[in-house]
Amino acid sequence: MLRKEHFNAAHRLHNPEWNVEDNVRIFGKCNNPNFHGHNYDLIVRLSGEVDPKTGYVFDMKILSDLIKENVLDRFDHKNLNLDVEEFKTLNPSAENIAIVIYDILREKISNDYDLKITLFETERNYVEYPI
Amino acid sequence: MLRKEHFNAAHRLHNPEWNVEDNVRIFGKCNNPNFHGHNYDLIVRLSGEVDPKTGYVFDMKILSDLIKENVLDRFDHKNLNLDVEEFKTLNPSAENIAIVIYDILREKISNDYDLKITLFETERNYVEYPI
Amino acid sequence: MLRKEHFNAAHRLHNPEWNVEDNVRIFGKCNNPNFHGHNYDLIVRLSGEVDPKTGYVFDMKILSDLIKENVLDRFDHKNLNLDVEEFKTLNPSAENIAIVIYDILREKISNDYDLKITLFETERNYVEYPI
Amino acid sequence: MLRKEHFNAAHRLHNPEWNVEDNVRIFGKCNNPNFHGHNYDLIVRLSGEVDPKTGYVFDMKILSDLIKENVLDRFDHKNLNLDVEEFKTLNPSAENIAIVIYDILREKISNDYDLKITLFETERNYVEYPI
Amino acid sequence: MLRKEHFNAAHRLHNPEWNVEDNVRIFGKCNNPNFHGHNYDLIVRLSGEVDPKTGYVFDMKILSDLIKENVLDRFDHKNLNLDVEEFKTLNPSAENIAIVIYDILREKISNDYDLKITLFETERNYVEYPI
Amino acid sequence: MLRKEHFNAAHRLHNPEWNVEDNVRIFGKCNNPNFHGHNYDLIVRLSGEVDPKTGYVFDMKILSDLIKENVLDRFDHKNLNLDVEEFKTLNPSAENIAIVIYDILREKISNDYDLKITLFETERNYVEYPI
Repeated sequence: MLRKEHFNAAHRLHNPEWNVEDNVRIFGKCNNPNFHGHNYDLIVRLSGEVDPKTGYVFDMKILSDLIKENVLDRFDHKNLNLDVEEFKTLNPSAENIAIVIYDILREKISNDYDLKITLFETERNYVEYPI
Repeated sequence: MLRKEHFNAAHRLHNPEWNVEDNVRIFGKCNNPNFHGHNYDLIVRLSGEVDPKTGYVFDMKILSDLIKENVLDRFDHKNLNLDVEEFKTLNPSAENIAIVIYDILREKISNDYDLKITLFETERNYVEYPI
Repeated sequence: MLRKEHFNAAHRLHNPEWNVEDNVRIFGKCNNPNFHGHNYDLIVRLSGEVDPKTGYVFDMKILSDLIKENVLDRFDHKNLNLDVEEFKTLNPSAENIAIVIYDILREKISNDYDLKITLFETERNYVEYPI
Repeated sequence: MLRKEHFNAAHRLHNPEWNVEDNVRIFGKCNNPNFHGHNYDLIVRLSGEVDPKTGYVFDMKILSDLIKENVLDRFDHKNLNLDVEEFKTLNPSAENIAIVIYDILREKISNDYDLKITLFETERNYVEYPI
Repeated sequence: MLRKEHFNAAHRLHNPEWNVEDNVRIFGKCNNPNFHGHNYDLIVRLSGEVDPKTGYVFDMKILSDLIKENVLDRFDHKNLNLDVEEFKTLNPSAENIAIVIYDILREKISNDYDLKITLFETERNYVEYPI
Repeated sequence: MLRKEHFNAAHRLHNPEWNVEDNVRIFGKCNNPNFHGHNYDLIVRLSGEVDPKTGYVFDMKILSDLIKENVLDRFDHKNLNLDVEEFKTLNPSAENIAIVIYDILREKISNDYDLKITLFETERNYVEYPI
């Protein structure tokens, strides 16, 4: 069962242990100190047994609300580096954002369900977690 | 090898063993007794060896015809609850529709091929079977 | 300024002044007496001057709320023929649905703005009103 | 003849003549002082006569290069408020970004061609200029 | 009323009055003498009055059949330069393909309807006719 | 980590060991001796560990350049049968194109990463390799 959601956020890729030249060489335009932004598309996939009483694996409305309260309300229209606790010391690459979202939702969803995150940074660049 | 098809149908989610309040609480607007509908997007995935004579895993035209005759002709522009035998006693949730389509096609396609169904109820809500 | 929204509904195309054969000949599978359904995509376009204080033509949130209250809450997860007043005597073709939505929103939005409706019945069939 | 391009940018909607409460009330989450961002989709439409020697209205490669040099290189992976001259005193709403892009390209393209800009801030919110 | 259709075709852009260098300079990779190809998306738009008996501007099935018989059956899975009469002496640019499709359909459709063609050569390059 | 790219190409499906009738029967319109074409969408998926210094599994720019130099520059705007060495004796079905792209990229990318190719011949027909 998969649910697709959207959020907008600003970010900057930067490794404080490197000098300016190395940051620019590795992160290119994504190192812009003034930040830039994305419309992220998020797909949350839950796998499990179909409940014979409802015909659902999981209630889509409940899943949508869980994502809204725990992810969208904290990430949408935010600066990931400045406004979101998890990225104060972690580089907000697409890979790390997917892992953070996985960790947030994994706590809220019973282990009877497998959980997988797909995060589109653009229509052409995206990541999956876990692999 | 994957093939994407479409069909339109009406449905209603309802568990006859529950009272009205429980049906509304669990199924929400999907419990509307007058039915509502969807444009379903269906992805059928066949996995197997490439035939060296054709370069095909499976002939896309034959797969498309199989889906048309066995699924689309029975589901498209229908009321799933009233017009489709399998849903007279089974709740036509996205999950159950995907399972029914899987069972229909599994009979028609040699076990040399793995089969997987993805069904989009909307652009944002979709299911896969088997997991 | 354009806003895209979605709703799901069941409908049936039928002209009560015609006999069964003519209804089937003209409306085909859309004449199914048990109804069938669609995920409609709705695009509402407002044209007007940019307000220099906000940089907006119209506040997207206000437009989205107007559409939600006046269109989506009345049409989404409904049977258009049975549940929506306007279609009790009007055939719910895509063209007529677009006209009804136009008339509903035209009343709520100042004539300082031009208004145009695009309604997708499927990804491949859609209508615009006014032309 | 239409060409679709993409860019990512951060922005903040803010009117310095208003107090904090009014800015939050009008611009909502878009007023976040730390900025947020979007993947903008840009459609540039040129209308004119078909050149009988080439069969082109305008060379798509030349148009694509014009957009790249004059718009994408200046806007992509940037903070519109801080990094782009035109938005230092102009609110970077979708409407104003479309007007600025129109003005930039209008100077570079002969008046033999009509020019129209469509800018998607998200898949569901977009603007056109001129109307 | 709009209908979206698809066809695949090979083509080559070439002006026989020019030398090799000029053809390569102007048409670039599209001048490859061995041809290359596209999945074309075609949108046909008919504008007119809504028929009060049907609620239709035009019957979508009839329009779809008209396009199939007069355009898709002649262009789909063809080499436009070699297999399609109209392009034996006319360069099959997107602009010219759109004009040829317009001329073909204009003959088949009553002048009570306005007709407009949109042709996508790729998702990012497309043309409209008439302007 | 996934990267989506595009290329246009002409091809013809043909088995030289069969007679004309068998080739037409099996490959249908794809056997047109004058070739036809497609806009192929290519998705390259790399799976591996996240590098803690960058937050990347693999640098998207490096992957994009690898695909460009080794696949797009050789396939885009080409006739696969005539211009691309690998298909001089191999039928350029979607399955075989995906396998050839896999083999080309597998050589260039460390075995620390799993590699998977998805190739869309059209929006509705696509293949994956390896399964």
